[in-house]
Amino acid sequence: MFSRRRFLRKAGVVGAALPVAGGLVAAACYNDPTGGPIDSSAVPTQNVKPGATQAPAATQAPADLWVKIDEDHKKGVVDFLRQQKAPITKGKGMQELAPRIENGVKVFDLTIDNVDWEVSPGLIEKARGYNNQIPGPTLRATVGDKVRINVKNNLEESSSVHWHGLLVPNAMDGVPYLTQDPIVPGGTFVYEFTIRNAGSHMYHSHHNSADQVNRGLLGAFIILPEDRSKYPQYDKEYILIMNDSLLGFTINGKGFPATDALIAKKGERVLIRWMNEGMMYHPMHLHGATMEVFQRDGYPVEPPYICDTIDVPPGNRFDCIIHANDAGLWAFHCHVLSHAEYEGGFFGLVTVLAVEDETFKVADLLATV
Amino acid sequence: MFSRRRFLRKAGVVGAALPVAGGLVAAACYNDPTGGPIDSSAVPTQNVKPGATQAPAATQAPADLWVKIDEDHKKGVVDFLRQQKAPITKGKGMQELAPRIENGVKVFDLTIDNVDWEVSPGLIEKARGYNNQIPGPTLRATVGDKVRINVKNNLEESSSVHWHGLLVPNAMDGVPYLTQDPIVPGGTFVYEFTIRNAGSHMYHSHHNSADQVNRGLLGAFIILPEDRSKYPQYDKEYILIMNDSLLGFTINGKGFPATDALIAKKGERVLIRWMNEGMMYHPMHLHGATMEVFQRDGYPVEPPYICDTIDVPPGNRFDCIIHANDAGLWAFHCHVLSHAEYEGGFFGLVTVLAVEDETFKVADLLATV
Amino acid sequence: MFSRRRFLRKAGVVGAALPVAGGLVAAACYNDPTGGPIDSSAVPTQNVKPGATQAPAATQAPADLWVKIDEDHKKGVVDFLRQQKAPITKGKGMQELAPRIENGVKVFDLTIDNVDWEVSPGLIEKARGYNNQIPGPTLRATVGDKVRINVKNNLEESSSVHWHGLLVPNAMDGVPYLTQDPIVPGGTFVYEFTIRNAGSHMYHSHHNSADQVNRGLLGAFIILPEDRSKYPQYDKEYILIMNDSLLGFTINGKGFPATDALIAKKGERVLIRWMNEGMMYHPMHLHGATMEVFQRDGYPVEPPYICDTIDVPPGNRFDCIIHANDAGLWAFHCHVLSHAEYEGGFFGLVTVLAVEDETFKVADLLATV
Repeated sequence: MFSRRRFLRKAGVVGAALPVAGGLVAAACYNDPTGGPIDSSAVPTQNVKPGATQAPAATQAPADLWVKIDEDHKKGVVDFLRQQKAPITKGKGMQELAPRIENGVKVFDLTIDNVDWEVSPGLIEKARGYNNQIPGPTLRATVGDKVRINVKNNLEESSSVHWHGLLVPNAMDGVPYLTQDPIVPGGTFVYEFTIRNAGSHMYHSHHNSADQVNRGLLGAFIILPEDRSKYPQYDKEYILIMNDSLLGFTINGKGFPATDALIAKKGERVLIRWMNEGMMYHPMHLHGATMEVFQRDGYPVEPPYICDTIDVPPGNRFDCIIHANDAGLWAFHCHVLSHAEYEGGFFGLVTVLAVEDETFKVADLLATV
Repeated sequence: MFSRRRFLRKAGVVGAALPVAGGLVAAACYNDPTGGPIDSSAVPTQNVKPGATQAPAATQAPADLWVKIDEDHKKGVVDFLRQQKAPITKGKGMQELAPRIENGVKVFDLTIDNVDWEVSPGLIEKARGYNNQIPGPTLRATVGDKVRINVKNNLEESSSVHWHGLLVPNAMDGVPYLTQDPIVPGGTFVYEFTIRNAGSHMYHSHHNSADQVNRGLLGAFIILPEDRSKYPQYDKEYILIMNDSLLGFTINGKGFPATDALIAKKGERVLIRWMNEGMMYHPMHLHGATMEVFQRDGYPVEPPYICDTIDVPPGNRFDCIIHANDAGLWAFHCHVLSHAEYEGGFFGLVTVLAVEDETFKVADLLATV
Repeated sequence: MFSRRRFLRKAGVVGAALPVAGGLVAAACYNDPTGGPIDSSAVPTQNVKPGATQAPAATQAPADLWVKIDEDHKKGVVDFLRQQKAPITKGKGMQELAPRIENGVKVFDLTIDNVDWEVSPGLIEKARGYNNQIPGPTLRATVGDKVRINVKNNLEESSSVHWHGLLVPNAMDGVPYLTQDPIVPGGTFVYEFTIRNAGSHMYHSHHNSADQVNRGLLGAFIILPEDRSKYPQYDKEYILIMNDSLLGFTINGKGFPATDALIAKKGERVLIRWMNEGMMYHPMHLHGATMEVFQRDGYPVEPPYICDTIDVPPGNRFDCIIHANDAGLWAFHCHVLSHAEYEGGFFGLVTVLAVEDETFKVADLLATV
């Protein structure tokens, strides 16, 4: 049942006392003493039998094992909280890229780069990124804008860029040999078009794409409508891009515990723009709140529907509003559980919706880790 | 093409004459003699026992093979019919657990147990179950109820319980190190909350969950609305929980032929509460009738939609009504066909909707097996 | 990253100059010289000529590799264009089978055959097909029609036929041992029923079906409503059946480059009847246009929804209208990218929507290949 290899890698990890969030103390009063918090004094040490003079008997190993499992789980959560204070991995994707304006055209510059990407602490993969980021920089424009994207290929293989979801002239669609020649190593290509349709769109490689997209050549291209009055009101916005396979299970280029929490105040409306750029299905389950899904691929979902688990197939994008009505730390993870947890704790497609109220402040919690 | 190992395991099985359901005789008149029913006298007997004087001629092998395949298929269906008379495996999950009332609180007691679970005849797996059942006992409550669930962990590893879909106080949400400490071996935890939202919800382990849930720590938690007038009328209710992977492909903890049929009278409205607790997708196809889907995760699907194949992603729940308008035995199975059939016949995610009318009674059919 | 075996198999392929479609020339003006079109004179030649005195220097290999990759990609597209002029593989599935009329009954004759099927150029698989076709012949009828289908089994194993989505009498439902005996080798079975429900339905084997359906025993059964006025108007109709696993990834029995393009004139409404007969999920992404989904399993989707990526789970059928508003060659492929592209270019679940206008004619393009 247990992966010894992964386990041994983590051996020696001793859980510091877990910080207990202010709002969470209530749980303790339900705890029977037998099942109470693990603190280091209460945890049976390895040689607990009276008079034991030698190495633990084989039969004792399982007891050791569950304690280590729990310590690993705890360490992951503590690391995740530390991530919310300061990044625990190198490299941050999805930095907003402000265009420069040239003769009324919004101009973006993208490079296609080899990058060593730290997916989670210590796990560094040979990857590829636009502007050395995974996901690439987030681009934004409005319907009616003229945009130009200068793309420079720094790889040792060809590439191209497809503007996934945007209606563009065929010659700008980015499919090698159908609409353009690939951008050869060292080469460049200029994409230019007028923005026609709003939505949570994407851009990604369309050459050797099962490899290149999976290794990181993807990003968000958010198109705002000219008339924003019909788009729902929201207080906060998060873009969540799922990927899997070659770089492991990631949200916005990082696997738990290096994922970013979603933070909101009680009562706020939190917009999520979901994008699945992976090769698998990831039904994302939100604890303690619901999602109101109102847009798919930039087109209306009528009427909007409410759910607690949302399935965004590869290539689709869904916009939804979370109503953050209850304070606390709410797990938010893929319900294909093998994408989210193993015997060493949470990993991969896991984050948290942290909802603050007058009694629970994220800053207070983070001050304890 | 054929799995010899599985095949030999089943060698020796000789199909008894298949019972022919009353309503099904019509089929026979379409049968050409060449393609008529296999009866035991026509089936070549096997010469594979030790001491057989010579090997079967090479040319004879293929002919034997298809006959064995058909016999295995037939045996599975006969076993399934026998299951409807009396269980053909040990262990029954989802027994309704009536709460006791303490000071106006509905109290449920759950234990977390190791259990040897017979998934299908002869296939016994090392599993885990609430109250020694897989799925665990079905819990029911109504919006507004106060409930308390006492959980005792009898495993050799920690666990916790998440009330999937229910809106509960954060401290009761069951996520180790985010909302509570795990329930250590031998420990207990008391969950207590007031029911806020109706729906076909679930409960399951949230610790080492890819393993624990998959091995059986899951159950249904049905929450009725205070005002039931807006919920569709139905004559019969079935809860169908799908799982996969560590215990194989199961509906309500059992794989075909140990699955229970859905039985209805012609004209009845049959409610199905679908729950996917597995790690895979299972588009369930219903023969001979349609499903009207009206609720997802406890929230309305507006307008309801009709289909013959329903896909419930892991973590989601869908409520639907079957209109049982035509009599007979209607196959009901996952249309990822490798989850439902192999060269030895049906297995896994397969059951039957049996619709009775004045000419077709299930009891009459079962009397023949 | 590269599959050497597949690569070497293709070695020696030298890309002819790629035809540039009339409407696509615009792209060129954006090309920087460094990133310009690959023409044969500019491409480094391979060191594969007879009599080469030594192995290529190690540092040269990577450069050769990306060139070969690009050549393979290009060759695939050229082969695909040639497929649109004349089939590049043997065997064509889904030929419309006109019924003969006997006493007011529409009669179809189907045989179940072993067939060597060329999935893509040179890839010939041991398969099974109705009337030696994969998918089987397309059947059409109208609600109210009486139909009779004579089925003859030419396999060395039993089979049966299920009319997936059609409401038929139980005895005609095609499930061995539940509703009929299997059709033994050499046997026949006559299915007869009155058509009750419209929709994009299917027929397929229901015996040893994980094997038989996957190997090709499947087809489309289109049922038109008596009153067609409520069904959307369309200019062109395409049936797209997805399959996977034993014969690879296929659309209508063929993998790219042997797939057929969808061809429309600008402004036309193109009906697609989607059917997934495989064991996997295939979210199909359309470039340059959107799909308006209005029917699932023959029942209304209300209101219709618009998307650019459609996910049809196994066993489901969706009807949608493409609004072909922009001229050009638009890629149309599964966005599980590993079902559509590898380091040797596109394969499997890939086709193209070709939209013609006054400046872009498919015939002109094809004249160049």
